[in-house]
Amino acid sequence: MNSNFILNFTPTGMIPTKEMSSYVPISVSEIVEDVHKAFEIGITMVHLHARDPKSGVPTYKKDIYAKIIEGIRKYAPELVLCVSLSGRNFGELDQRSDPLLLDGDLKPDMGSLTLSSLNFNKTASINAPDMITNLATIMQQKGIVPELEAFDIGMINYAKYLEKKELIKPPYYFNLLFGNIACSQANLLHTGVMINDLPKDSFFSLAGIGNAQLMMNSLSLAIGGGVRVGIEDNIWYDNARTKLATNSDLLKRIHVIANANDREVMTSKEFRLKMNLEPGNGKYGRKLSV
Amino acid sequence: MNSNFILNFTPTGMIPTKEMSSYVPISVSEIVEDVHKAFEIGITMVHLHARDPKSGVPTYKKDIYAKIIEGIRKYAPELVLCVSLSGRNFGELDQRSDPLLLDGDLKPDMGSLTLSSLNFNKTASINAPDMITNLATIMQQKGIVPELEAFDIGMINYAKYLEKKELIKPPYYFNLLFGNIACSQANLLHTGVMINDLPKDSFFSLAGIGNAQLMMNSLSLAIGGGVRVGIEDNIWYDNARTKLATNSDLLKRIHVIANANDREVMTSKEFRLKMNLEPGNGKYGRKLSV
Repeated sequence: MNSNFILNFTPTGMIPTKEMSSYVPISVSEIVEDVHKAFEIGITMVHLHARDPKSGVPTYKKDIYAKIIEGIRKYAPELVLCVSLSGRNFGELDQRSDPLLLDGDLKPDMGSLTLSSLNFNKTASINAPDMITNLATIMQQKGIVPELEAFDIGMINYAKYLEKKELIKPPYYFNLLFGNIACSQANLLHTGVMINDLPKDSFFSLAGIGNAQLMMNSLSLAIGGGVRVGIEDNIWYDNARTKLATNSDLLKRIHVIANANDREVMTSKEFRLKMNLEPGNGKYGRKLSV
Repeated sequence: MNSNFILNFTPTGMIPTKEMSSYVPISVSEIVEDVHKAFEIGITMVHLHARDPKSGVPTYKKDIYAKIIEGIRKYAPELVLCVSLSGRNFGELDQRSDPLLLDGDLKPDMGSLTLSSLNFNKTASINAPDMITNLATIMQQKGIVPELEAFDIGMINYAKYLEKKELIKPPYYFNLLFGNIACSQANLLHTGVMINDLPKDSFFSLAGIGNAQLMMNSLSLAIGGGVRVGIEDNIWYDNARTKLATNSDLLKRIHVIANANDREVMTSKEFRLKMNLEPGNGKYGRKLSV
């Protein structure tokens, strides 16, 4: 166990709207500003979702991601950036892989890879086997590292299958997400099984949907894991839902708990070394020689 | 723990073809004959999949199910019959619910209800939340009991959600299925968590995909659970894959293991009483007064 923990900041997501919370960053400048503030507070990496500038709905388009990435890196050129390749709203490979076309100073370090189809509250999220293997193949070709998203125990088995097929290579980074209605629940038994099943050379953060966010984050700080936190997973600051969260408030609370537990945020530089990522500052993604 | 165990016979499925094994029953008469033989050996219930008589591919059509059910009940009028409502090949509610329209002497006692979207080896199997709740609603209206299919731990949580919404009512019957690539694996930790999470008043059978079938069946006989077995889940008799299985061979082996464990197959009559099902012999499905 390393005392430094990965703090994965997830400011926006696909669900929150301005109607739900005025604090959710939607426009390019709002997202960039929230990430800059987060960088000042102290984070390791960012999980980015782009929104259409006019409608505010989720978009897969690389042009929007390009503006967000450019804005962030002007100020924080080492920060590890992960783009969403979610299929929740977009069904085609060329849509989902669009942000992977960004290169040079705009190249993302990582891209999200959900490891199976699943159900959310109201909708199915389809990630068919060929979609997963195609996205993994493109990422491997481009030296972009998958952020492995596991919502249930079987998804970790699928990561092991991808490893066997050499479609992913260690070291790995997993988000383990709990509290989604048809997936693993936020309890110690499910969490223990998920962590126990991880492949060798894996880093992980624990995430909780809605009210489960604080519990899972705090649990992870107690046991030596990383933290995924942000308005994407919970728009509320308190479980009584009396106070809407700002991203800064959520991050500051993690710092308070971490300090009291004698744990420090892993710098992007340290995470880049551990994950065999390029050093940032103009070079991004995984070192191809590794 | 009741020493009598549910033996759920699953002769056909959607995947095996005559090219894979000449022993898989495809036509109405083949399925009826295999079920009659199984009834002689001793089973509690049957999980039926229908196939198109010309092409041999899976069909949702109630007319085919009607012929199978009629043929089985001529000889075994008490046997508990479950029809597949699988969405693996059929996407529309009126297709998937078609077998639920059968009534009177042809009414199925149960219908399969998969509790989330998931990935199989090559394909996604889509069961969106509204499809699940619609199928559950139709079954409740018709007094047909869902056979709850859980491939991973989150699916059991979704059953608890359906219970809270009163879309399903106890007592429940679950198939817990292990060894699918992106779902729970055939090991004691995953199995223990799944069984531990079941709602009150649940009966369950353990099933394994491919080579996992024998292990999961045998494990279940050891610990007091039921058994789902048949060519649907594994066309091979031995794990070395030197000998193709007949359905009778698979059932006889279960009887050997059960006898040595001092356990007996639950009769359909006993299962009907425990599940509040009508007595068979012309009356099928759940007692509506319950």
